[in-house]
Amino acid sequence: MPYLYSFFNDYSEGAHPQILAALQAANLQQEPGYGLDSFSEKAATLIKKAMQQPEAAIHFVSNGTQANYISLSFLLKPYEAIIAADSGHIEVHEAGAVEATGHKIITVPGVEGKVTPEAVLKVLATHTNEHMVLPRVVYISQSTELGTIYSKKELEALSQLCQEKKLFLFIDGARMGSALTSHAADFSLPDIARCADLFTLGGTKNGALLGEAIVITHPHLQSQFRYQLKQQGALLAKGRVFGIQFQELFREQLYFENARHANAMAQQLAHGITALGYQLAYPAVSNQIFVILPDSAIEKLQKKFGFYVWSKASDHPKHSVIRLVTSWATRKEVVEQFLEELKKS
Amino acid sequence: MPYLYSFFNDYSEGAHPQILAALQAANLQQEPGYGLDSFSEKAATLIKKAMQQPEAAIHFVSNGTQANYISLSFLLKPYEAIIAADSGHIEVHEAGAVEATGHKIITVPGVEGKVTPEAVLKVLATHTNEHMVLPRVVYISQSTELGTIYSKKELEALSQLCQEKKLFLFIDGARMGSALTSHAADFSLPDIARCADLFTLGGTKNGALLGEAIVITHPHLQSQFRYQLKQQGALLAKGRVFGIQFQELFREQLYFENARHANAMAQQLAHGITALGYQLAYPAVSNQIFVILPDSAIEKLQKKFGFYVWSKASDHPKHSVIRLVTSWATRKEVVEQFLEELKKS
Amino acid sequence: MPYLYSFFNDYSEGAHPQILAALQAANLQQEPGYGLDSFSEKAATLIKKAMQQPEAAIHFVSNGTQANYISLSFLLKPYEAIIAADSGHIEVHEAGAVEATGHKIITVPGVEGKVTPEAVLKVLATHTNEHMVLPRVVYISQSTELGTIYSKKELEALSQLCQEKKLFLFIDGARMGSALTSHAADFSLPDIARCADLFTLGGTKNGALLGEAIVITHPHLQSQFRYQLKQQGALLAKGRVFGIQFQELFREQLYFENARHANAMAQQLAHGITALGYQLAYPAVSNQIFVILPDSAIEKLQKKFGFYVWSKASDHPKHSVIRLVTSWATRKEVVEQFLEELKKS
Amino acid sequence: MPYLYSFFNDYSEGAHPQILAALQAANLQQEPGYGLDSFSEKAATLIKKAMQQPEAAIHFVSNGTQANYISLSFLLKPYEAIIAADSGHIEVHEAGAVEATGHKIITVPGVEGKVTPEAVLKVLATHTNEHMVLPRVVYISQSTELGTIYSKKELEALSQLCQEKKLFLFIDGARMGSALTSHAADFSLPDIARCADLFTLGGTKNGALLGEAIVITHPHLQSQFRYQLKQQGALLAKGRVFGIQFQELFREQLYFENARHANAMAQQLAHGITALGYQLAYPAVSNQIFVILPDSAIEKLQKKFGFYVWSKASDHPKHSVIRLVTSWATRKEVVEQFLEELKKS
Repeated sequence: MPYLYSFFNDYSEGAHPQILAALQAANLQQEPGYGLDSFSEKAATLIKKAMQQPEAAIHFVSNGTQANYISLSFLLKPYEAIIAADSGHIEVHEAGAVEATGHKIITVPGVEGKVTPEAVLKVLATHTNEHMVLPRVVYISQSTELGTIYSKKELEALSQLCQEKKLFLFIDGARMGSALTSHAADFSLPDIARCADLFTLGGTKNGALLGEAIVITHPHLQSQFRYQLKQQGALLAKGRVFGIQFQELFREQLYFENARHANAMAQQLAHGITALGYQLAYPAVSNQIFVILPDSAIEKLQKKFGFYVWSKASDHPKHSVIRLVTSWATRKEVVEQFLEELKKS
Repeated sequence: MPYLYSFFNDYSEGAHPQILAALQAANLQQEPGYGLDSFSEKAATLIKKAMQQPEAAIHFVSNGTQANYISLSFLLKPYEAIIAADSGHIEVHEAGAVEATGHKIITVPGVEGKVTPEAVLKVLATHTNEHMVLPRVVYISQSTELGTIYSKKELEALSQLCQEKKLFLFIDGARMGSALTSHAADFSLPDIARCADLFTLGGTKNGALLGEAIVITHPHLQSQFRYQLKQQGALLAKGRVFGIQFQELFREQLYFENARHANAMAQQLAHGITALGYQLAYPAVSNQIFVILPDSAIEKLQKKFGFYVWSKASDHPKHSVIRLVTSWATRKEVVEQFLEELKKS
Repeated sequence: MPYLYSFFNDYSEGAHPQILAALQAANLQQEPGYGLDSFSEKAATLIKKAMQQPEAAIHFVSNGTQANYISLSFLLKPYEAIIAADSGHIEVHEAGAVEATGHKIITVPGVEGKVTPEAVLKVLATHTNEHMVLPRVVYISQSTELGTIYSKKELEALSQLCQEKKLFLFIDGARMGSALTSHAADFSLPDIARCADLFTLGGTKNGALLGEAIVITHPHLQSQFRYQLKQQGALLAKGRVFGIQFQELFREQLYFENARHANAMAQQLAHGITALGYQLAYPAVSNQIFVILPDSAIEKLQKKFGFYVWSKASDHPKHSVIRLVTSWATRKEVVEQFLEELKKS
Repeated sequence: MPYLYSFFNDYSEGAHPQILAALQAANLQQEPGYGLDSFSEKAATLIKKAMQQPEAAIHFVSNGTQANYISLSFLLKPYEAIIAADSGHIEVHEAGAVEATGHKIITVPGVEGKVTPEAVLKVLATHTNEHMVLPRVVYISQSTELGTIYSKKELEALSQLCQEKKLFLFIDGARMGSALTSHAADFSLPDIARCADLFTLGGTKNGALLGEAIVITHPHLQSQFRYQLKQQGALLAKGRVFGIQFQELFREQLYFENARHANAMAQQLAHGITALGYQLAYPAVSNQIFVILPDSAIEKLQKKFGFYVWSKASDHPKHSVIRLVTSWATRKEVVEQFLEELKKS
């Protein structure tokens, strides 16, 4: 890429060196295929321990879209639907993957990308007979598509509402690592596991070569999930590829360290940017930050750095919102270079 | 695994060392996501060159089931169907993945695992109105699920029939490498590309960590395929993982060398076994061989080696058919140990 | 029903007496099944003549939801999507039937229930790559779910936009009769046929026992539609049931007379209501009118008449919007009784 | 049709006169839509009484394909499959409707069109892991597509096997009337209801204008079925059309009388044909008979009568199997004319 550095996303590089080393170390060991290898088993055990749910079921798939639609369609009868924020990844950026499994997504206006209990109740109040779909799952992302995070209280409120209304709570954790290690986080992985019926833990955006863990905590939902995976093209012959990586991520603290580093880089960017007098569009609490900048400054920055221009700024003429994403691989120097460049703009 | 060696399949180990080295070498290079990286582009160019079709479109996905159902459903209108051998992988061992996309598979009796033009014609003769599905694709595997291969003449006959009858010819090449390097092969990769409208080239069973190339030769079928991939959960954020591997496989001759080694090991097994007076169930021409053995011998072998007991032997009481699969990683010594053990049985 | 009269909908009674008589008259004539009967053929010819498109293809199905999702899914590749108003019938009241065929509905804010070219352009501007669905069809209803109608100019503008942008225009004509015979209509059936690529003509809500005609004007979309119908459970063994009815509706003018009567009754209601000083929520131009009434008046009316309370009135506290629907079977006397009752409220 | 009489099928005419009269009599009564009318309720009560299952749930849809795929897909999770005879209607003549809902049909060789417990057990024995679909429903037809019927003992054996193996038993009763009134029947409607978890009762082929009853006896399967119906385009606005007809069919004995008459006509044909020295391909026990005739005789008959030539006769050169179908509307005279014509051939 022609950039000094790309802040487009958190998957521009390969894998954390320890992950590659682990793949190398295990390479010639013969193992059963399709996720029944000893590495996947050990990785699952480590994750269950970390979330304090020894009875959960854990499966690994290759990407987030797959993790989402396979899990959601597993939870639903044909006429059942999902409630999601209008900015939800499944609604906007998965090319209709959920609908392709036959299910409607009912969108509600997100508050900084978050679903509120009030919004869920409103959907329930209007979906009262068989001429409409039957809402069954609440889908949320932690951290959200706008880089924000649900507080423990918010999570618990949604979880309780779902229990009362016989809905499932699904948490898309493509960037769960960043949420868990946020300076603003007041929840832990065990909290997530307790609140969700089914959630994912992303590897791809947190230092793995590829891979997402699907965690099923609800005991009635664990049976037959491997059929679903196989049918949807998600079982890899060399499922070991996932097992080895997640074992490395959760063997000690790599999963958390990677995310913590990405967050620290984002914080440094956010502090530097606001110190220069610019505003953020949303609270900077994870590895994605959204900054309101003059279009002229953006144009200059784009010559050296890669990033998405997210939208026009609603209240500032000739300003736009840009998104900056950091990762385990973002170095302090490039952050400093970015701030330097912005200063000159 | 508790075996001296597992002949269960060709994906028991990780990746060929050169592949791991290539992943390592490219690791910190920043690249665009979702298959738009420079590695994937170069890999596609190399494959197109190897098959002498510079205008083909090439995409990479993580496994064979995914490659099959995504490609097949892309070719079909809702009421259109696929003709396949009764032993076809999509019919038997993909958990209904094709049907999950809404399409029927019309099976025909395979001749050593192969679809014949006569069988296709018979299907067309009976599917004549809208009370039945409309056959549109002929699915074949090269090499087949029984380890056999289609000859050039057989491929051309099917290809011509498909053209005449306005059917698409799809070739599942999960084990294409083994077919192309078979001592019995009278066809080349350009022949495959010429005969098929769409085919796959398997990496997973030929030394890659994971990955299958989908090759679209038919010019009218190339547009919008990335939408199909995204919707079906097949676009990886780090699509570079495929690009790097396939670049390495086709940079020089690794794809062919890996397969040739696997075939050589299978030949050594086959010769050794027949020299001991045992029979093969099908011609031994690829990296899968099927051997008829007394149940007592099988029981002894199973104590040291892993392999599938495929079926009861039809004409020999107290005999069964076993499947032995070799790979790029199978060493000459374990083949010799297996033959030694069989001799003692 | 315990009501003096039900204004709930336009399908509370059976069929127009002429329709029943036609079914009776043809009863013992033996005919081929599944829509290949002579009645269906004649009915199609009559409709094609009425819309001045002798080359159109016409099929009959049993209800509007079926007509919609079968037609829409026929037009679309897996990753393609439909643009519709947020009040569109397919979005709100068809229980996810379209999504069940695998396709996303992209909603735009309706203007009095209508889709605008601006709204369509906005969708196209934001759906620019394969991470999002690909918009392919614009769905509109004529008359709309709010009883309004598109003018000829509005229809032509959408039609032209669709042609320019390679979108299909689909018109849901469950209540097309009411639209065509509206006092406010400046378009004819040939105009509809010219603007739409595919549209429906509703029988059920216009005097038939059941049945909707699907009209395909676009020549490239006509082939193989019967496969789609059969697969989706829409071909009736006694397809004659549709043919006989639509032949009767279009033999002379029954289709238009039924609708004209329903409209006249709605007009009488609207004039009487506004004469009493109440307001309409939307223009009264078809057989559905929406009236803003005090909740107290509504409560009284509900004791004698059936109708839906549609929503709270946005600007009037303690007022709500009710929907009144008239049909071919609504008698002048019940309209007068309703107005009398309202006067007393 | 240019025939003296058509024996093509049992839906060549309209409805039994009593049915039409009932539609006429109820015509102007206002009723709620979508199957919530008083007629449908009464019809359901009558059917439940006839089958001695007051707790069953009953729904009406417009045709057999719809009844089948809507019911079957309601019973299944995405990766679950149906076991059916290779001659089963869902496998052969429903244009892939079941697969379009995402489910595989596993075929077993039918014995005179019937599924045997042995065949089911064989399927279970080979479907043992997630690389294959999970068998969940056994689909049978009563009477079968070859005009044969399951005996009470055969039904009970399948029913018991299904219970033991946690499979559902689904009976396609498009021609259940003919089965129940067969001279060879040793079972009653209550027997059917006791053995099946879900079954259908066909109206279309037994004197109704259109309509099939779906009967759900299994208590855990009754909830939310109306959502499934609505989503699949099966709820008619004027659902009364079904209610009125089925009320008439089960008010007294019309359902049984119609079928008995059809059977009697088939018996007369069968006796006459065998008396002339010709053979039947299958036992003549319902309203469909299959006759082996010389091709020369068939050619002559075809000039006066309509019927399908089903297949070449396997053991008789220059002979074919024809299918003759009788109905409530078939008159004794046309049967005699047919036999007369055959005599001359």
